[in-house]
Amino acid sequence: MKRGTRAVVLLSGGLDSATVLAIAARDGHECYALSFQYGQRHVIELNAARRVAEAAAVQEHRIFPIELSVFGGSALTDSSIEIPQRSTHGIPVTYVPARNTVFLAVALGWAEVIGARDIYIGVNAVDYSGYPDCRPEFIAAFETMANLGTKAGVEGDPMRIRTPLIKLSKAHIIRQGLKLGVDYSLTISCYAADGEGHACGNCDSCRLRAKGFAEAKMADPTCYTHDE
Amino acid sequence: MKRGTRAVVLLSGGLDSATVLAIAARDGHECYALSFQYGQRHVIELNAARRVAEAAAVQEHRIFPIELSVFGGSALTDSSIEIPQRSTHGIPVTYVPARNTVFLAVALGWAEVIGARDIYIGVNAVDYSGYPDCRPEFIAAFETMANLGTKAGVEGDPMRIRTPLIKLSKAHIIRQGLKLGVDYSLTISCYAADGEGHACGNCDSCRLRAKGFAEAKMADPTCYTHDE
Repeated sequence: MKRGTRAVVLLSGGLDSATVLAIAARDGHECYALSFQYGQRHVIELNAARRVAEAAAVQEHRIFPIELSVFGGSALTDSSIEIPQRSTHGIPVTYVPARNTVFLAVALGWAEVIGARDIYIGVNAVDYSGYPDCRPEFIAAFETMANLGTKAGVEGDPMRIRTPLIKLSKAHIIRQGLKLGVDYSLTISCYAADGEGHACGNCDSCRLRAKGFAEAKMADPTCYTHDE
Repeated sequence: MKRGTRAVVLLSGGLDSATVLAIAARDGHECYALSFQYGQRHVIELNAARRVAEAAAVQEHRIFPIELSVFGGSALTDSSIEIPQRSTHGIPVTYVPARNTVFLAVALGWAEVIGARDIYIGVNAVDYSGYPDCRPEFIAAFETMANLGTKAGVEGDPMRIRTPLIKLSKAHIIRQGLKLGVDYSLTISCYAADGEGHACGNCDSCRLRAKGFAEAKMADPTCYTHDE
């Protein structure tokens, strides 16, 4: 890859996407970070995304408003659905219908306009095995579709969807991020953080994160509600 | 197909999508019309979409705001790019990067929430041969991706992307719509209509429409600026 080529990096403000951003920069890209205000309950994540983007000195950080919450159908956007405190089998209620498809589609539009050919996304098929849109076969199909549906693809200068975390354990992700200098105290992973950004410590996402730090034998800089 | 199953129909307010809506209803679907406010210059189309949705007595009509214009890159959303008055070779400047990918992605999310399995879109590979995201191979790839990335697809109840106009001439589309009772005076196709909804008569879209009516040997109910 030519150093300095542009990449769009999906940045949620969580641990995974902060790591992905560091990887995209390490790969030599000029990074264009893209976050979404999609009616998520955990809007506190967007502040984390801003901090992470700033710390990584990205070329540009856009927060794109898209009200997926108007459709409902997920515990992450619909306050009438309770966020589960333990893992369930099958597709969890925190799945947001077609979320990654929508996010990648918008990223694709931006990438085409700015001449980026790489789109980085922090999906993980190990921890999020219940989410259909975190699987390698979905990502491969999206890339195929993207190259049939865009000027770039048709003109023989294809788009690539980069998923450097897709097969990594949380511990592996954390070790890699720390090696690249990611400051995980800037990130937040909780589905139900309070207004001041304290993590609940109980939701799926908090438990995955805590387990990852434990397995990586590293201190978790997350501030939990019960730390107060 | 079971009568009364739900379908999401992308509705721009133009001639093609009005015809598609009539076809979806004829196919026996309960229709959920979806329009986008995406920063298009021709926002007058949205009024046409409202009229068409009302005339077709759809179950619900949503206008989804999504500011693709913030990215620029198209004559349809960027007022600094001139709308061409004649056809060009290759991909035209009116192409909006990844537009159909984004629209179909949002439609997919809504379809999943309301339990629809059919998504109708009025793409046409004959007249819009320069748009990569109007081609059958793009649509097929989107459908494959959609069924890998959604709960519905994974659980064996697949989504279908319906493109009843994809290989029809404009004249054929018009004849079919008239047979189904579409009132084309409610629609508008112009890329550069004035504030009162009068078509310019000169842009690609106007010329295609006029040619279609001429070939179908039908009167065009469009109100052009020069009719005044």
